[in-house]
Amino acid sequence: MNRDVAVIGVGMNHWGELWEKSLRDIFVEAALAAIDDAGVDHIDAMYIGNMSSGLFNGQEHLASLMADYLGQSPIPATRIESACASGGLAVKQGCIEVMSGMRDIVLVGGVEKMTDVGTDEATFALASAADQTYEVYQGVTFPGLYAMIARMHMEKYGTTREQLAQVAVKNHYHASMNPMAQYPQKITIEDVIHSVMIADPLRILDCSPITDGAAAIILCPLEMAHRFKNHIPVKISGIGHATDSIALHTREDPTALPATTAAARKAYKMADKKPEDIQLLEVHDCFTIAEICVLEALGIMEKGRGGEAAASGLTWLDGKIPVNTSGGLKAKGHPVGATGVAQIIEIVTQIRGEAGDRQVDKARIGLTQNMGGSGGSTVVHILEAAQ
Amino acid sequence: MNRDVAVIGVGMNHWGELWEKSLRDIFVEAALAAIDDAGVDHIDAMYIGNMSSGLFNGQEHLASLMADYLGQSPIPATRIESACASGGLAVKQGCIEVMSGMRDIVLVGGVEKMTDVGTDEATFALASAADQTYEVYQGVTFPGLYAMIARMHMEKYGTTREQLAQVAVKNHYHASMNPMAQYPQKITIEDVIHSVMIADPLRILDCSPITDGAAAIILCPLEMAHRFKNHIPVKISGIGHATDSIALHTREDPTALPATTAAARKAYKMADKKPEDIQLLEVHDCFTIAEICVLEALGIMEKGRGGEAAASGLTWLDGKIPVNTSGGLKAKGHPVGATGVAQIIEIVTQIRGEAGDRQVDKARIGLTQNMGGSGGSTVVHILEAAQ
Repeated sequence: MNRDVAVIGVGMNHWGELWEKSLRDIFVEAALAAIDDAGVDHIDAMYIGNMSSGLFNGQEHLASLMADYLGQSPIPATRIESACASGGLAVKQGCIEVMSGMRDIVLVGGVEKMTDVGTDEATFALASAADQTYEVYQGVTFPGLYAMIARMHMEKYGTTREQLAQVAVKNHYHASMNPMAQYPQKITIEDVIHSVMIADPLRILDCSPITDGAAAIILCPLEMAHRFKNHIPVKISGIGHATDSIALHTREDPTALPATTAAARKAYKMADKKPEDIQLLEVHDCFTIAEICVLEALGIMEKGRGGEAAASGLTWLDGKIPVNTSGGLKAKGHPVGATGVAQIIEIVTQIRGEAGDRQVDKARIGLTQNMGGSGGSTVVHILEAAQ
Repeated sequence: MNRDVAVIGVGMNHWGELWEKSLRDIFVEAALAAIDDAGVDHIDAMYIGNMSSGLFNGQEHLASLMADYLGQSPIPATRIESACASGGLAVKQGCIEVMSGMRDIVLVGGVEKMTDVGTDEATFALASAADQTYEVYQGVTFPGLYAMIARMHMEKYGTTREQLAQVAVKNHYHASMNPMAQYPQKITIEDVIHSVMIADPLRILDCSPITDGAAAIILCPLEMAHRFKNHIPVKISGIGHATDSIALHTREDPTALPATTAAARKAYKMADKKPEDIQLLEVHDCFTIAEICVLEALGIMEKGRGGEAAASGLTWLDGKIPVNTSGGLKAKGHPVGATGVAQIIEIVTQIRGEAGDRQVDKARIGLTQNMGGSGGSTVVHILEAAQ
């Protein structure tokens, strides 16, 4: 680890059900926005985070395809997959390449086009993040897995139905100030509690949606950042990545997320930070219960007390530790491969002071946590203003 | 690029139609063999090359799954996809991680379990390496794409049906001495020419098979290699990776492979080698015509004269530049994600002098070339005896 890495450009599209655009259109749109934002005149390498373009779009060989459509062949382009953590892991790989000295200007993109298939096929594609043999074959899908986690958290720690709902209410409120969000509608606790049941206790407003979208960032060595546009360079000061069993039943405590805890420990150590140093977070709220468990695993909330975070106001935009100011997966949308990259974009936007109505006051240190499946992989990044 | 990288362990299984084994079984078998061969007591990180476990096995999130089944959670584990070049690209990523100083002992595995689906689904999965919109949707599959390349090479350069066949005859002869090969049967030119027509002029014996299999290697900094088992350490001295349009029709000359040429140029430069320094090669003979075009793109044969390579005896085991002594994709088998890793294993085995009946005399410098689709991505490695 020889060189510090800076994020010098960010770009994404308005996420949603983008019927009129193809997988490659969506990616190229975000990538061009990031290139423009950075003001670079070339890129040296690309990483693409994508979970399952095979099952969603019948298309593998994705990194070469995207490099070509971005007009960048023959540069090295590599696709990274780690289920819903594919984007965060692509960011990590881009950082390693810059650190290694192999390349200077690296584009990291994430993309998923999920509406090219019907709901059954999309559910099957998403379920491929779980253990095909021991979970999916038995009929389990992700809402079911997270419902079991939620039920256990409620039984064990007294977490309430209303506390779950408040995570969704907060994240929709934040999304109402994000022009890129798929669901910027404000909702109430009542809306959540009376929405359609998906897997008891989780209702549809506890779940992140099916989304088409892409996100891209440009990385370069920090020492080189001043050569480009006059943004505040944002340094990636901490990186942590860990794995766990992808099958929920093999975990000692299904409400714990050991891969998140292990990844966070590494990132805190590398950045020389403690949980209390973090001013804002983007975390993997694929379901409302996930945000609760993640805040506990990151050491932001005490074990068992994650339900109080949104309910007490702590993690709202005007609270002490705003969480998911972008709207999170819940309301900004969750094009799985793009999510981890977009989390970085939100923190960079906040640190630059460009977040508009959802700006966190004096944001200088933020953390992202991107998770695969029910916690089988996690990537944590810590970002800091570099000046 | 601070540290030289050595291969200190290799392992694979006997490839074939492994009905009785699962995707995870196959991978773990190869990985344990590599760990045992290296004599390491732990690994720090893992990379997994796999093309399409989503379409073949309904399973993504592959790196975490494999790390878990290998008993290695929570180590960082990352899946790399670049169609049939996934394995070679995983090797490159493992090298970058060792070079960067982030990790010391890295396992790189490749795996594909292709017989869990029927032939139509396997053909669809493989076709996802081509351009879904401009090629696959129009009905083109890979034998068709390579048949067009073959026809053009024959028209333009006078390459003959017999010259194509001799690539297959040579590679089956080599495979007859490889106990891990799927098809170790020796064949004749007559056998090839009279085998079932697939896509004119390519017949079934011009095509690599559907294969289940895995391959794994252990990398570490060269300076650390002496601590482990007493193998000759093999240094990865050159790495090149390049992309191209994945759609054949957009290439100026479909018989050229610009990504292979670009990747080779980088690898030669990094290793400070010329084509004439290379003593043996493992190249991507997914079809007989591919080996011919690849040898031209690598600068081993003059443009248009690749057909003479096998036909003249040059690339046979006892020729001047043995190519695919393992049997190649054609006869050793082609579990797509594993192929690029197994190519490294063959060169390492040869440099160590452990190749038995197919040993190349005084093998010290070898090259591997692993290609995605019809040439949309290519990874080249140069390996050398380090003592």
